[in-house]
Amino acid sequence: MPEASVQTLRVAEAAFQAFAQGLACGEWSPFLDQLSDDFTFWFPAGPFKGLNHGREKAEAFFELVSTHFPEGLTLVVLQIATSPTTVIFEVRSEGLMAGYPYQNQAAIAFDVRDNKICAYREYLGVVFQLGQ
Amino acid sequence: MPEASVQTLRVAEAAFQAFAQGLACGEWSPFLDQLSDDFTFWFPAGPFKGLNHGREKAEAFFELVSTHFPEGLTLVVLQIATSPTTVIFEVRSEGLMAGYPYQNQAAIAFDVRDNKICAYREYLGVVFQLGQ
Repeated sequence: MPEASVQTLRVAEAAFQAFAQGLACGEWSPFLDQLSDDFTFWFPAGPFKGLNHGREKAEAFFELVSTHFPEGLTLVVLQIATSPTTVIFEVRSEGLMAGYPYQNQAAIAFDVRDNKICAYREYLGVVFQLGQ
Repeated sequence: MPEASVQTLRVAEAAFQAFAQGLACGEWSPFLDQLSDDFTFWFPAGPFKGLNHGREKAEAFFELVSTHFPEGLTLVVLQIATSPTTVIFEVRSEGLMAGYPYQNQAAIAFDVRDNKICAYREYLGVVFQLGQ
């Protein structure tokens, strides 16, 4: 693996640990500290659907996520794919959403620049629909 | 990039071309020909939601997809990430669904074994909900 990719993977894996910790226990500062000033994120649904800019918006988003999973959401990494600038984690997630069992699969992409996460994109593997 | 990853990428890119062609024009044989006998696929929603086994089921799925996009769906690749066994394409898709403009983003993962695609997993970047 080229040196650029090794460093990208290292930065992304550290950020992913902090991201998983945020989902597990609602403490997001260690993840937010690893975001670049021009951080953007993309989410598939809900009030932050589409492209969002900035760390403050990210903080609001992750706090909202944690209110949906007050007992935490646990991630298991299934696969990791890399490029010189991006790392994608395929994960399974499990927890309780508003007290009900919740399971999903997702692809979580982190773009890395200057040892910071400059973009996060989430893609959902299970679409939940009302009435299912 | 290690030799295994180079070959994985080569096989996955050829399959992706055939996949994009299938979405564009409804001709799926060139893609189906590149699937292993034990092929599995994962889709986030609809009648094939979750894990599906076998080429025949894949054929039924892709024919159904093409009925939703009779004028074709066009993919633009935004990023490619690799591992020795998996390639993930982040794409933007655009077309007409039942006559209405449709746009999405997705992460499409292909697992490669013995120069065949043995698994395909799709993750959606935009969740469409009724009433939106």
